[in-house]
Amino acid sequence: MEKVREIMREGRRVAKEDPRRVVHSFKVGLVLALVSSFYYYQPLYDSFGVNAMWAVMTVVVVFEFSVGATLGKGLNRVGATLFAGALGIGAHHLASKSGSTGEPILLAIFVFIQAAVSTFVRFFPRVKARYDYSLLIFILTFALISVSGFREDQVLMLTHKRVSTVIIGGLCCVLVSIFVCPVWAGQDLHLLLASNFEKLSLFLLDFGDKYCEAEENDDTKEVVDKRKRNFDNYKSVLNSKSNEESLANFAKWEPGHGQFKFRHPWKHYLAVGELIRQCAYRIHSLNSYYNSDIQVSIDIKKKLGEPLRRMSSEAGKAMKEMSNSLKKMTKPSSSNLHVQNARSAIKSLTNLLDSGILKEVEPQELISLLTAISLLIDIINLTEKILESLHELASAAKFKSKTAKSEKPNAKSIVSVQPTKYHDDHVVTIFEDDDTSKHNNRSNEVPIDEEHETKCVSCNHTSPRDVVECDNVSPK
Amino acid sequence: MEKVREIMREGRRVAKEDPRRVVHSFKVGLVLALVSSFYYYQPLYDSFGVNAMWAVMTVVVVFEFSVGATLGKGLNRVGATLFAGALGIGAHHLASKSGSTGEPILLAIFVFIQAAVSTFVRFFPRVKARYDYSLLIFILTFALISVSGFREDQVLMLTHKRVSTVIIGGLCCVLVSIFVCPVWAGQDLHLLLASNFEKLSLFLLDFGDKYCEAEENDDTKEVVDKRKRNFDNYKSVLNSKSNEESLANFAKWEPGHGQFKFRHPWKHYLAVGELIRQCAYRIHSLNSYYNSDIQVSIDIKKKLGEPLRRMSSEAGKAMKEMSNSLKKMTKPSSSNLHVQNARSAIKSLTNLLDSGILKEVEPQELISLLTAISLLIDIINLTEKILESLHELASAAKFKSKTAKSEKPNAKSIVSVQPTKYHDDHVVTIFEDDDTSKHNNRSNEVPIDEEHETKCVSCNHTSPRDVVECDNVSPK
Repeated sequence: MEKVREIMREGRRVAKEDPRRVVHSFKVGLVLALVSSFYYYQPLYDSFGVNAMWAVMTVVVVFEFSVGATLGKGLNRVGATLFAGALGIGAHHLASKSGSTGEPILLAIFVFIQAAVSTFVRFFPRVKARYDYSLLIFILTFALISVSGFREDQVLMLTHKRVSTVIIGGLCCVLVSIFVCPVWAGQDLHLLLASNFEKLSLFLLDFGDKYCEAEENDDTKEVVDKRKRNFDNYKSVLNSKSNEESLANFAKWEPGHGQFKFRHPWKHYLAVGELIRQCAYRIHSLNSYYNSDIQVSIDIKKKLGEPLRRMSSEAGKAMKEMSNSLKKMTKPSSSNLHVQNARSAIKSLTNLLDSGILKEVEPQELISLLTAISLLIDIINLTEKILESLHELASAAKFKSKTAKSEKPNAKSIVSVQPTKYHDDHVVTIFEDDDTSKHNNRSNEVPIDEEHETKCVSCNHTSPRDVVECDNVSPK
Repeated sequence: MEKVREIMREGRRVAKEDPRRVVHSFKVGLVLALVSSFYYYQPLYDSFGVNAMWAVMTVVVVFEFSVGATLGKGLNRVGATLFAGALGIGAHHLASKSGSTGEPILLAIFVFIQAAVSTFVRFFPRVKARYDYSLLIFILTFALISVSGFREDQVLMLTHKRVSTVIIGGLCCVLVSIFVCPVWAGQDLHLLLASNFEKLSLFLLDFGDKYCEAEENDDTKEVVDKRKRNFDNYKSVLNSKSNEESLANFAKWEPGHGQFKFRHPWKHYLAVGELIRQCAYRIHSLNSYYNSDIQVSIDIKKKLGEPLRRMSSEAGKAMKEMSNSLKKMTKPSSSNLHVQNARSAIKSLTNLLDSGILKEVEPQELISLLTAISLLIDIINLTEKILESLHELASAAKFKSKTAKSEKPNAKSIVSVQPTKYHDDHVVTIFEDDDTSKHNNRSNEVPIDEEHETKCVSCNHTSPRDVVECDNVSPK
């Protein structure tokens, strides 16, 4: 009884995680019941006979979760069946000329050679990625046709029936998977990338504050544990490679849908995904320093806090912005500014370090502190690379430009970007987010929204000096 | 023509990478030709008829590269066929009681419910890992039996034939895969782990020297490129998770073979593999610092070179030793000493740092240097964790103890371990490798072999002071 309840709980969890799974299960049941009608209705049965079973088999084997996977498997199956059918008939014809003793031997040799060669070809990496299933079906159909041809004289008839039932089964799957609540692998890949961006941004947005406050408040064990859990979100990014690759493989089979055209540049997604993963590796190292036993003293953290916070949060904001622009399929316009802000924060940090602030720091602390700093710098460098790569993706996929939308003179949301030199080395960049456009349709009041940054984005710090610095700069 | 030559080259590469692939292809061809004989020979055809085709299908679908995968799929298929066959007969019996109009409707409902529920259950992570194929075959067989039962009155006969042909096909696959040049997934997992250890050790053994020599010789671009390629070996470890997991899943199905018993603790392999991957992430970061533009001056590198080299090489030796002991399935006896040596090197390094050596270093250099140091320390910590985890694996898998073997008084290879206090903080540990035992069977000469370390293992450095230090300590 406890076991049953546990299974029910697991089922609810699985359904809640992705409700499309329930819909998919219904779809499979529906198509299978539909195709089974081949057997029930006399007219259909008369034309196909026992071969109608191939339609049932095709549905069970081909119907996958996403359209791309279903389409890929369906096309693989139909193509391979056609090709192997033709080849099987040829083999049968050749063997039948060699008399009744020679025929089975020749057929066995054909089957052996074909199976051995096809199995070997399945090991080719490029074949394995896209045509593995094709070759499986090729071996199967060739063996069945050439061998059963030995018994049944109407080989052509048999092949015709097998091919047409496979086509009917495959077509049912493909049509239902496209037109009934479709699950697009391409869209999933797109959203997976956006969510990976977001996971990293969540870490980075919090990291600066948490790192600098680490010892100010005596956290209880529970608080520490909770923080740890929040931080651990990014870990799923570390192992997302195989998932991304299979989604990209499926996506290549998909027709145009929604905002994605047929030849959407999916391989660019893999490139961006790889860089995001590189960044996640660094974040993983950074996280281990944050959780390490060696704590840097509050004193030095206070001194370096401002640029450190800014570095982390600006990188986080750049990631967040990239996530949003990917979701909306617009060019990532303001990420560049965030990266510049992060760069300027690096400069102020190095200036602080140059001023001899580290002289009194213990070597142990120094190691921990400087490693965190250097990993952060590394992350910012990678963020810049990711941004470049995302720009390439955006232009290959012809993402809309954000600025074009907000150039209407009436719209309240004007991107006002003015890099303002403050010290020689510290560029503070100010800009308004142009997201306001959609709010302006509702009301004319200035929107209060956590996504809006009408203030100086590079100054979300709290030390008095910085606030003064910030107040001097008002958006024009 | 060029295309054909390219394919030939690719084929040669694939075969060279793992010659077992060629053998596997022959095996598949052989079994398929064998099973096809069901069709050729009258007596066999008489008893199974067209159903003999199920044996052919089973072979094509079930025969996988490794024994574990074949056995898993075969058992899944046979079990699911039996269960679904029984259930299908029951459904047929129930439906046949409801009259000629009710029967097809009821059968369609049964098929729908069964397919929908089974498809949903396939999403459960634990089911997906081990029984995904079972459920596929379950849906297929149930649909075929209950639906074709509507036509053919001899449902029991049909089920019996389908089940027995599937069993015959599956049995052929399993027997051939076990007894003809078997490929064991368990062994592959075992060797994969050992090679992952080795890849990391190769990086670490070289890293110290290369890092400290970086600017002494003006390397040409080619040399730098080549070094980069040698270093990049470890990168395959970063994404080995999915491969390890699937091998472990297959290995669970395998019977005892060679040194692996039936219930070999495969899940411990996954734990060790995960830690190795964690270490690889750190190495990945370390590598990026090594390749970065900011170079640390030779002066400071010379001062810190000795402990840095030792840290890296001792960690590398520990990894190498773990790789070897895993390969030989003995307990990793001397790795602990290498880790201790690495720890003592860390201590001498921190002492050096405490002595104020860093006062004159530029902040930029300092960041780069200290990050490399801290990542190295991190790697040594992880090496210790990996060693613990490997010890757990070794005791769970009942690996032989190395020392027991070499305690024979006659054997020349006696592990002589004497931690010798040198300075207050610098423990130099000396030991002889006990690998010599196998060489002693061949000859009584002292073997000269790169695997043997009859000298002070913690002193493979070159500075004059160290050599003197080393000469003072001779193994007793």
